[in-house]
Amino acid sequence: MDTPAISRYPVPPLGTLPDDVRTRILAVQEKSGFVPNVFLTLAHRPEEFRAFFAYHDALMEKESGLTKAEREMIVVATSALNGCQYCVVAHGAILRVRAKNPLLADQVAINHRKADITPRQRAMLDFALKVAAESGKVGDEDFERLRSHGFGDEDIWDIAAITAFFALSNRMANVIGMRPNDEFYLLGRMPKSK
Amino acid sequence: MDTPAISRYPVPPLGTLPDDVRTRILAVQEKSGFVPNVFLTLAHRPEEFRAFFAYHDALMEKESGLTKAEREMIVVATSALNGCQYCVVAHGAILRVRAKNPLLADQVAINHRKADITPRQRAMLDFALKVAAESGKVGDEDFERLRSHGFGDEDIWDIAAITAFFALSNRMANVIGMRPNDEFYLLGRMPKSK
Amino acid sequence: MDTPAISRYPVPPLGTLPDDVRTRILAVQEKSGFVPNVFLTLAHRPEEFRAFFAYHDALMEKESGLTKAEREMIVVATSALNGCQYCVVAHGAILRVRAKNPLLADQVAINHRKADITPRQRAMLDFALKVAAESGKVGDEDFERLRSHGFGDEDIWDIAAITAFFALSNRMANVIGMRPNDEFYLLGRMPKSK
Amino acid sequence: MDTPAISRYPVPPLGTLPDDVRTRILAVQEKSGFVPNVFLTLAHRPEEFRAFFAYHDALMEKESGLTKAEREMIVVATSALNGCQYCVVAHGAILRVRAKNPLLADQVAINHRKADITPRQRAMLDFALKVAAESGKVGDEDFERLRSHGFGDEDIWDIAAITAFFALSNRMANVIGMRPNDEFYLLGRMPKSK
Amino acid sequence: MDTPAISRYPVPPLGTLPDDVRTRILAVQEKSGFVPNVFLTLAHRPEEFRAFFAYHDALMEKESGLTKAEREMIVVATSALNGCQYCVVAHGAILRVRAKNPLLADQVAINHRKADITPRQRAMLDFALKVAAESGKVGDEDFERLRSHGFGDEDIWDIAAITAFFALSNRMANVIGMRPNDEFYLLGRMPKSK
Amino acid sequence: MDTPAISRYPVPPLGTLPDDVRTRILAVQEKSGFVPNVFLTLAHRPEEFRAFFAYHDALMEKESGLTKAEREMIVVATSALNGCQYCVVAHGAILRVRAKNPLLADQVAINHRKADITPRQRAMLDFALKVAAESGKVGDEDFERLRSHGFGDEDIWDIAAITAFFALSNRMANVIGMRPNDEFYLLGRMPKSK
Repeated sequence: MDTPAISRYPVPPLGTLPDDVRTRILAVQEKSGFVPNVFLTLAHRPEEFRAFFAYHDALMEKESGLTKAEREMIVVATSALNGCQYCVVAHGAILRVRAKNPLLADQVAINHRKADITPRQRAMLDFALKVAAESGKVGDEDFERLRSHGFGDEDIWDIAAITAFFALSNRMANVIGMRPNDEFYLLGRMPKSK
Repeated sequence: MDTPAISRYPVPPLGTLPDDVRTRILAVQEKSGFVPNVFLTLAHRPEEFRAFFAYHDALMEKESGLTKAEREMIVVATSALNGCQYCVVAHGAILRVRAKNPLLADQVAINHRKADITPRQRAMLDFALKVAAESGKVGDEDFERLRSHGFGDEDIWDIAAITAFFALSNRMANVIGMRPNDEFYLLGRMPKSK
Repeated sequence: MDTPAISRYPVPPLGTLPDDVRTRILAVQEKSGFVPNVFLTLAHRPEEFRAFFAYHDALMEKESGLTKAEREMIVVATSALNGCQYCVVAHGAILRVRAKNPLLADQVAINHRKADITPRQRAMLDFALKVAAESGKVGDEDFERLRSHGFGDEDIWDIAAITAFFALSNRMANVIGMRPNDEFYLLGRMPKSK
Repeated sequence: MDTPAISRYPVPPLGTLPDDVRTRILAVQEKSGFVPNVFLTLAHRPEEFRAFFAYHDALMEKESGLTKAEREMIVVATSALNGCQYCVVAHGAILRVRAKNPLLADQVAINHRKADITPRQRAMLDFALKVAAESGKVGDEDFERLRSHGFGDEDIWDIAAITAFFALSNRMANVIGMRPNDEFYLLGRMPKSK
Repeated sequence: MDTPAISRYPVPPLGTLPDDVRTRILAVQEKSGFVPNVFLTLAHRPEEFRAFFAYHDALMEKESGLTKAEREMIVVATSALNGCQYCVVAHGAILRVRAKNPLLADQVAINHRKADITPRQRAMLDFALKVAAESGKVGDEDFERLRSHGFGDEDIWDIAAITAFFALSNRMANVIGMRPNDEFYLLGRMPKSK
Repeated sequence: MDTPAISRYPVPPLGTLPDDVRTRILAVQEKSGFVPNVFLTLAHRPEEFRAFFAYHDALMEKESGLTKAEREMIVVATSALNGCQYCVVAHGAILRVRAKNPLLADQVAINHRKADITPRQRAMLDFALKVAAESGKVGDEDFERLRSHGFGDEDIWDIAAITAFFALSNRMANVIGMRPNDEFYLLGRMPKSK
């Protein structure tokens, strides 16, 4: 079989990209050993690329009351709801790595109610899935339930904002047919990986 | 009645905001005569604010095969699906103004199938609503239908990206309880307004 | 553009209508200054016309524990659920007038949970939407919740019956393609209108 | 067991009813041998009672391109969708009698796609169920499909109006807890009944 | 009309069947006076036939904390949800016979919330319908509710297993177009039948 | 953390099991190197255990027009729809092994429309998911579409029966909280594994 396309849209050669976009892509390659296809496929539109990753970093890289693994759980659970192959596979890998747990990503993707998570994380994902599926029904009672699990209002904004950002990301990936890199499937699957 | 809150979260005084954020807000006030609450409420997090409006402008202000009115139709139709009061009211106003049509926004919000739009615009909104509700089912047949109405692949990206961006925006507005400014309700409602 | 049709079905000339139907139509024109299209389009079948408006008046014009504005809220909220352009636009106008509130109709149509209404009215609309969407699940617990907000059993019948009547009305309007009069869109939108 | 209530609401003694309502009830008792509970339970509100049965008769008793059995099929199929015990049981009985077929009502109630009906009747029920469940999506293509099966536009109005009227009826029956008379369950079940 | 087919698939002549399958079929004919079509249609695949009826008997014939009538209620309620004509008609008959109640089966099929059952049976059917429709959401709170109605854990397994087995059965019947025997429709409908 | 339970129900010690059940379990341990938890957890009820595995083997081990990998695709896709952690993880592993493809199982579980499969397999899974979610709507048009992809009627029975059997299996696993063995997560993930 031919190498499958990673997008319905043209993937620009690195040399044709604006400097800042190319620099970002080379940096991630340096760090990860490969370039996740989200970078290559979204580079088709540099201005949107910049806003996308600025938003991503503002949510996923900053200090937060949520651990980085928890943030990835939100991505995996809500992306599974949306049937987004790229995000479940890629962020499933990141979740395995960040949680140092080879089982968690598949559990969360299939049914977070059966996953090896704490009641606090269960409440977090219940809320994220409500925001993903029917945000118009969010109300005071949701804030109260989350507070009872120790989440502060800034944490709740984080859960909502990550869910909202990947609502965007899932839709783009689904429409353009973004294909996950083969590398992601195996990442972090070895027990006791570090 | 007291003035209702425009957000569950604190709204920062203008004087405390980073310069670029404040400048943007003052510019919109200068142009519109009031500050839409999306600016004030999202300023609670300046970094996300910057990414949000950079994304917004990249989609809504640029040249496109879609008219500005058509882009607003997408916002109104998909935001109504998501029960987002802020986006339907605010972008309904912008749609009325841009389309110079006082009826269109309400029609599109309630049921785009009954709106005074062209078959091409109907196909555009059918697709946007599919992306909003079940993007995982988007496939070749959707691209083919849109092409048969004269949309090019870049136009399709535009439809998808606007829908995706407001998927994010609707979820944030719903969770933080963003309240539309009273001014929006009446804007553009006078017949033959210009 | 040509004047759009107000129905898929023929609209009978006033002169051809039975006396009682014509008299009713002339009376509403006298009172409102225009004839709402629901009268003209349903006059296609005089016998159903008579039963329709007899039912309507029995619910909407009588004394009730619900104010007239509250009854219109029920119409707007449930008609929005059903995607009925005619009823949301026409009864949205009546709601603005009866509540002397230019914002309320759009709020209730988009998402009653975010509207400027009392907790009692919120419970009323929650119930109306349940009756509209899944009446087979109504049970004692719904009656108890409404009673806890001060509704008596006759009030509950009123909420249910108004919802049920507009379930009929919405379906007819959607099938025949009933178009709202342009006049409705602007009615009651001026602040402090009286 | 005590006799179960036939409504959550008081059932008025015949002697207290307005003359026209009582006369109607006595007539149906004379004809059927018992009084269907819909008459007794809705008599709680005589004005609504009158409008209800006027509407009912305008649709169900008149000349039509649909046979009386076909009209009952519409009632049974859409009432089953709405989980309305009264309407499925009572109109199931009437359908058996009118179609002289002891099997048809249960078939249509459970799954009209598997019922012993003609392709034309299948198209009729497909449309009725669409009107019952998502009338906002009805469009030209529905009219075309029905016309291809020989339905005229007045027949289509009939299908829609019967569905719409029982949308009302189902909701009232579900909310007030209208109980079907025991007599209905067995009516028309004998093979070759006449 | 010709005799309608009882399956999309060939129905094997009795003489061609393996001895054990034929013996089972003759035994049921001896006992019931006719052969329910589920035996004839599934005999198309003897190995699956054997497993199907072994499973069926393990659940439906054994001693249990659920009465035989209660087990049939579960079959009727969940099969109605799945639109399975065969199972609702055939097991509706068995339910009428086992409960010695000519009304119960239709009530449970249309809307178990309105049926003449105990609160304990209502809780049983609520759970069965959750298992049928969204088993992935079953959790501790469901077990607790059932225990509060006096169900033991083995009873809960029974409810779940009967629901699960008929999830299989409904899907097979729906796909192969299994037709209920005419005899079932009338069985057990006489009041005080024994 | 303690070893998590593999079922809400007691897991019987091997020594207490009937001979045939124990023998089957020891055979699978011999072959696979571990005992999949479905054997241990369902052994709680030996009679149901026997029927379950007889059914399973009749469908999954026999000669068929579907390859063994294709049969596992059906299991994975429909079990993901049902949120069944055990079946997606365990049969995902078997699918990877049987298809000699480390990527396919995750793709099919998340969104079969984006998986590396043939159009024929896509049609197979579309049908399986329809049987899983709304079997009451299956009709002639589904058989025709499958035949156009080269499936014979016995193949279609196979697709339906596998889907139906795992409809049962998913519901049992979800209710009893069946936990997948850790071993499954990594099985078959090495590229070019054999």
